[in-house]
Amino acid sequence: MFLIRRYYSSVQRIAQIANATKPGDTLQIQGWIKNVRRLKNNIFLDISDGSTSEKFQLVVPRNLDTHQLTLGSVVSAVGRVQLAPNGHYELHADEVKALAEGHVQSGYPFSPKQKHPPEYVREHLHLRSRIDYIAAQMRIRHKAQKAIHDYMDALNFVQINTPILTTNDCEGAGEVFRVQPDSERLLKQMARPNVPPEQSYFDQKVFLSVSGQLHLEAMSYGLGNTYTFAPAFRAENSKSPLHLAEFYMFEAELVHIEQLDTLAAFIERMLKDITNRLLNSSASDLHFCQQNANASSDLAWLQAPWKILSYDEAMALVVANSDKLKSAVSPDEGFSKEQELFLVAHCGAPVFVLNWPTQQKPFYMKISRSDPQRVHALDLLMPSVGELCGGSLRECDAELLAAHPQLPKDLAWYVDLRKYGGLPTGGFGMGFERYLQLLTGVKNIRDVIPYPRYPHSCKM
Amino acid sequence: MFLIRRYYSSVQRIAQIANATKPGDTLQIQGWIKNVRRLKNNIFLDISDGSTSEKFQLVVPRNLDTHQLTLGSVVSAVGRVQLAPNGHYELHADEVKALAEGHVQSGYPFSPKQKHPPEYVREHLHLRSRIDYIAAQMRIRHKAQKAIHDYMDALNFVQINTPILTTNDCEGAGEVFRVQPDSERLLKQMARPNVPPEQSYFDQKVFLSVSGQLHLEAMSYGLGNTYTFAPAFRAENSKSPLHLAEFYMFEAELVHIEQLDTLAAFIERMLKDITNRLLNSSASDLHFCQQNANASSDLAWLQAPWKILSYDEAMALVVANSDKLKSAVSPDEGFSKEQELFLVAHCGAPVFVLNWPTQQKPFYMKISRSDPQRVHALDLLMPSVGELCGGSLRECDAELLAAHPQLPKDLAWYVDLRKYGGLPTGGFGMGFERYLQLLTGVKNIRDVIPYPRYPHSCKM
Repeated sequence: MFLIRRYYSSVQRIAQIANATKPGDTLQIQGWIKNVRRLKNNIFLDISDGSTSEKFQLVVPRNLDTHQLTLGSVVSAVGRVQLAPNGHYELHADEVKALAEGHVQSGYPFSPKQKHPPEYVREHLHLRSRIDYIAAQMRIRHKAQKAIHDYMDALNFVQINTPILTTNDCEGAGEVFRVQPDSERLLKQMARPNVPPEQSYFDQKVFLSVSGQLHLEAMSYGLGNTYTFAPAFRAENSKSPLHLAEFYMFEAELVHIEQLDTLAAFIERMLKDITNRLLNSSASDLHFCQQNANASSDLAWLQAPWKILSYDEAMALVVANSDKLKSAVSPDEGFSKEQELFLVAHCGAPVFVLNWPTQQKPFYMKISRSDPQRVHALDLLMPSVGELCGGSLRECDAELLAAHPQLPKDLAWYVDLRKYGGLPTGGFGMGFERYLQLLTGVKNIRDVIPYPRYPHSCKM
Repeated sequence: MFLIRRYYSSVQRIAQIANATKPGDTLQIQGWIKNVRRLKNNIFLDISDGSTSEKFQLVVPRNLDTHQLTLGSVVSAVGRVQLAPNGHYELHADEVKALAEGHVQSGYPFSPKQKHPPEYVREHLHLRSRIDYIAAQMRIRHKAQKAIHDYMDALNFVQINTPILTTNDCEGAGEVFRVQPDSERLLKQMARPNVPPEQSYFDQKVFLSVSGQLHLEAMSYGLGNTYTFAPAFRAENSKSPLHLAEFYMFEAELVHIEQLDTLAAFIERMLKDITNRLLNSSASDLHFCQQNANASSDLAWLQAPWKILSYDEAMALVVANSDKLKSAVSPDEGFSKEQELFLVAHCGAPVFVLNWPTQQKPFYMKISRSDPQRVHALDLLMPSVGELCGGSLRECDAELLAAHPQLPKDLAWYVDLRKYGGLPTGGFGMGFERYLQLLTGVKNIRDVIPYPRYPHSCKM
């Protein structure tokens, strides 16, 4: 692997120095100058190459050419690794070269000495990766995806790229984005009789996906267990710090699953395993982001066994404690965010709420054979973010499904899946950004995704 | 890992039987009946659970209840593993249970004894994963993505989820899809002065991404090497077997890269490594798909060193051989598909074509300092699919970039990246589906993606 890593560059990335070198080794680094202290014999530079949130010091003797070593500049240095008095590695330069100027005095919006509020940083989206806590979030985001793929692959789940363009309009809930070619000329060229002109590319209305679940199910009927990790879209006019117009969903579909608590056990084990992988791969970035967000780093939920409540038990708890809660209690409408967080605090652990009222949940969930007023659905409630996952057993009886009053009329294909060799299946979906918020304590979802899209904002 | 695998099910997946068991072991399988042969003492069933394209035989003695064991039904069986005379493992059932009926006589479009043409299979998209070669493609597709993520992660590249929604309209080339909320009510509610009503959600025209490159570059200026694996969209009226309206792009951006042949060497090494990983993980699926497509399975390009030609050398070869070529030779317009394949055949290996005429390539490519008529761009040409990757060094001089006549007017941010601590960067993009076609020999791109979207077709 070392050979490959050096294939296109002999440069050592700073994050790897502690593992790959020992004091006295000679190596080359390249990065941006984040801080400059000029002392009598040496100049001390903090260097970042984007690989770690830990500070790395480059010590440059005054006898080298140092006048271009200014804040924001890109520098390349060759030198010897030494152990600094604080126990960290640092590099003592033998050669140093400024590759490009920082020009931080000429309109650069960030000051290295100042902690800018996230709203301000977001205004300069194209330069945001240069802010240390954003870079750390992006590395965590990468490693979290990697952990999900590694975990699911080890369990022989097949990742399916569920489509972004779909004719499924999410039960006509009106929160979808519509798609058409931008070119009027193309639309005219492709016109067909009886098709509205703006629909002529696909001959029908096409939307951006709000969930890959139904497409995933169709694949599971040939492949067994499947999952998808894909962008999803909601055209909501929401300024909430938990919602985006474009976000990522991790969804899985399990075959031959007959019990809802089996699904809950799978989710708990998966989330704990993935989080432990992240603690291994990204401990310093996680710690850095938590500190930056003034968030706790104990992740107590990782140790405790998670709780299971029925919907009725959970609602009874909320009703009994309604005097402590600001939000109105509506037994027919589920829980407010405040009530979700109350349940988690009350149980002292994440909570699965099982067996929901049928009228609150969509047509595809399996109706209880002993109590048709309940479906085999679950929500997972977590500290600080509330609902993180939603899941259910799916209705696997083709006749019951076909007779469901809320079945959308263009979903005959979905019933077909059950007709020919039906299976008991179940699955869940998780908002990936909420999981990142849970891990790092970041308040606003706009700061855990590289390019946030929300009402009145789609920069770049 | 074994403990986790069995957590939600005690069922053994067929693909793992050869590795995880030995003759005499007792185990449980579940799957669809793909074939039934009734002999005097036993019924022989081919069982598929979606995990492998290799046949697996279940032997059921006649003294068990077998009347529901019909084609297409879902069956669960417990039995002992035995080595069949052909050297394969098979299961001799002690218990067997039909879980659901196949109903293949009641409108199921596929006949198990018949090989349906891909056009016909595509008509029944929701049932397509039950066709063995489609299921094999989906498993290969999964493992190919996994190999890309594993490879890039090992090299410390950070995966960036580049946005799907963007205001970048790809230089106004007119091949983009436009996005807006479907709800007229929402558009009215969000209306702002001086914003056209259909643009009121984002206050401007928003498109589906055609490439993540520019967004990736912005991230590389803080994080170093990055990559993206994401859907991309083209609103072209193309019936070509190499084009889709929604497809996947693998793009990477490398920092501190100064030479184009370094980029070529990276691409060659990466593609060979990823393909070797796939040969390890998916040999039988690859072989199955190649056979099904009547394609060669030798992948000779994997062994040979790849060739490098300058654009001028490549064009001279085409001109010298124009009598053998049907397509017109246009030195100012690059190569036709036929000419690309001729160059590959002529060289007996994949070919990188380097240093393209400036006027043929986009504004962001680095112009040669010694010959401004040439940019540091490369195309990778492969057998059977032609162009697989395109890449370049990026123009890193902010002033040259700002003065480029083709710079889109809303890309001031892109120039900004270079202004503050500029870097020599370079990168490439690869059409993921074309790579799958190259591997498996599948002629039509619509058959290597779960849900193909193309003109007049967006099913499900």
